[in-house]
Amino acid sequence: MSISPFAPKSLPELPLITGVRLASCEAGIRYKDRKDLTLATFASGTVVGGVFTRSKTAAAPVDWCREHLAGGTARALVVNAGNANAFTGIKGRDAVRMTASSAAAAVGCEPGEVFIASTGVIGEALDPDKFDSKLGALEENLSDTAWEDAARAIMTTDTFPKLATRSVEIDGQSVSVNGIAKGSGMIAPDMATMLAFVFTDAPLTRQSAQAMCAAGAEKSFNAITVDGDTSTNDTVLLFATGAARARGVSEIPAGEDDRGRIIASAIEDVLRDLAHQVVMDGEGASKFITVVVEGAENPQSARRIAFSIANSPLVKTAFAGEDPNWGRVVMAVGKSGEAADRDKLSIWFGDIRVAAGGEVDPDYLEADAAAYMKKPELELRVDVGVGDATATVWTCDLTSQYIAINADYRS
Amino acid sequence: MSISPFAPKSLPELPLITGVRLASCEAGIRYKDRKDLTLATFASGTVVGGVFTRSKTAAAPVDWCREHLAGGTARALVVNAGNANAFTGIKGRDAVRMTASSAAAAVGCEPGEVFIASTGVIGEALDPDKFDSKLGALEENLSDTAWEDAARAIMTTDTFPKLATRSVEIDGQSVSVNGIAKGSGMIAPDMATMLAFVFTDAPLTRQSAQAMCAAGAEKSFNAITVDGDTSTNDTVLLFATGAARARGVSEIPAGEDDRGRIIASAIEDVLRDLAHQVVMDGEGASKFITVVVEGAENPQSARRIAFSIANSPLVKTAFAGEDPNWGRVVMAVGKSGEAADRDKLSIWFGDIRVAAGGEVDPDYLEADAAAYMKKPELELRVDVGVGDATATVWTCDLTSQYIAINADYRS
Repeated sequence: MSISPFAPKSLPELPLITGVRLASCEAGIRYKDRKDLTLATFASGTVVGGVFTRSKTAAAPVDWCREHLAGGTARALVVNAGNANAFTGIKGRDAVRMTASSAAAAVGCEPGEVFIASTGVIGEALDPDKFDSKLGALEENLSDTAWEDAARAIMTTDTFPKLATRSVEIDGQSVSVNGIAKGSGMIAPDMATMLAFVFTDAPLTRQSAQAMCAAGAEKSFNAITVDGDTSTNDTVLLFATGAARARGVSEIPAGEDDRGRIIASAIEDVLRDLAHQVVMDGEGASKFITVVVEGAENPQSARRIAFSIANSPLVKTAFAGEDPNWGRVVMAVGKSGEAADRDKLSIWFGDIRVAAGGEVDPDYLEADAAAYMKKPELELRVDVGVGDATATVWTCDLTSQYIAINADYRS
Repeated sequence: MSISPFAPKSLPELPLITGVRLASCEAGIRYKDRKDLTLATFASGTVVGGVFTRSKTAAAPVDWCREHLAGGTARALVVNAGNANAFTGIKGRDAVRMTASSAAAAVGCEPGEVFIASTGVIGEALDPDKFDSKLGALEENLSDTAWEDAARAIMTTDTFPKLATRSVEIDGQSVSVNGIAKGSGMIAPDMATMLAFVFTDAPLTRQSAQAMCAAGAEKSFNAITVDGDTSTNDTVLLFATGAARARGVSEIPAGEDDRGRIIASAIEDVLRDLAHQVVMDGEGASKFITVVVEGAENPQSARRIAFSIANSPLVKTAFAGEDPNWGRVVMAVGKSGEAADRDKLSIWFGDIRVAAGGEVDPDYLEADAAAYMKKPELELRVDVGVGDATATVWTCDLTSQYIAINADYRS
């Protein structure tokens, strides 16, 4: 499998997050000669927020996390790659419970403070014994710098590890937000499309952690699509250790205030950075495409039109062919079923207006747009002419490489 | 472009439909050395029913047909291939009006009795003068046997012409239904996915023609998908000349009676036959797949789940790879957002039950399903375990050939 052309030349350096330690190892669940099991531990007092797939066939670990999110505190995170523990019935639920018990014993906490995420093949039983024997050893090898190892150990069809970080100043102190994510196919909104874990030393409350995680996911992972397919295991978790409290940063409650906005914005930035990396590593992707819809009736309508464009196989193959095929954009606007005025519709590729007022722009030169389409990162903008609402989503093109990957890989 | 593996070895012989005559010619709109303009004429008294795309950016000829369907009578049909006359603004509306006038003059009827359909590139102006000079000559060359010529002249990316016929006995007389269709990509429900024209000598009323056209389309063209993309130009028209009246067949009004059921069933058969041919000619298709959903909450829910499966790129690429990847079927059920009980979900490939009760079937042997997947025509059945409603839709697989066709062809 070839590496995405968008793979970063170097990975970002993630700072320490006091209270967060990580370790990864080979559990041999599906892969050989690579790490596939990760344990992260959190200092006492760590709060957690989360957002999960809206799939009606959500996997066992998603059910577990949803149930225990109500508790609001987290001491450990266990992630395995290669087996999604989805559609595994009562055995799947048992496997999650046993994994939580094993991790709780290793870490010294309650099972309900252990969060679990799985990614990989759907429908194969997951043997929790494989974890049980490893979690104790992982606990002994925890490190506060093992970010890249963890980002690699959660990968499935990803071609590069995904890391992001931001630091902001609050109460005169530097507070950090680190994130790792995995995802490449089966990527569509309706939460969250893959696994992402974000860690901060900001002293959030349960409520502010949940609110910031949900708001950030909405503008990042819920605004991307690779293939319109929604995973059974999508999970975004935000862990806030509160360690910055010791440096004089006071608690940041939910609700609107400047300190909250600063850290919420950093969390959103990290999530968006990771979400963009997921699209850039979209299976077979050769183009990263920003779709902007303007002039819609309301934000929901704008979003539905944007996704109708971003998920259209004909639009995506046109991008793959570097063809400024705006007729297919018209088609995708039309099929969304949302309000749009055909005779006021305008379309731009980058700064090049190709259509306006329901007709091709008289000044439009196809050669200009064809030249623009050769760039790896592209923007498509559509004004549907009925209102003021806007939406932005991100997607990639659909290439024969996507077919090659998915006609063979058993997911 | 290679011919679909499902192309019929021989085309069906279509009988005469008294009152219907056809002719096709080269108008040179986009294609060279092939016919691309078709005129059909209908005897006085012919009634018409129609169903059209639900696209919000419907093309000018669709607007025209919708407007004049209210009149209920038809004397001519003009179809061009190569230019969809969509997103062509006021010029597009003028082109349709001028074409209707030209045809009306050639045939000797009102412009409002001329129905028009276009298919091809979106967004390029259509020059009606190209038709004006041809329609008179076409009228002089009308024939009552030129079905294959017409079926070929309406093709775009189709790799074979699509014809179907049924004859039934009503009032002791044979009554016939002939149909032709085109379509290969940009195929999804929400009406009707392409162009289809059905002709009968049955003495229908305006109301019964409309009702039978709509009911037949619902179970045929509205139950297929190639790529989930909905055209701006989808059109199904049913023309009923009533010529069988002269042979003693009395009028068939709308509503439930045996005679009406017989002809409605023949119309539905012709439409479904044509719809299946469209899927079998789906761009790049190597598999024809029947998706059956059972046990759903209600028929709409069953249909949405069936389309969620049939439109999933991951399900479609699994079929392309001959991989009985039922985990992706679980994913597609889940992402539909419709009610489904994960722990009662059952899945069959053909007669092979792969999953039941939220787990893989203990008797399931992957080798059996892998052997089944090598067949060109496949059935996937899913019981979602919450009710009694069912739905059936048809689709094809997603292959690298689809990408090759659509990364190059300007539609």
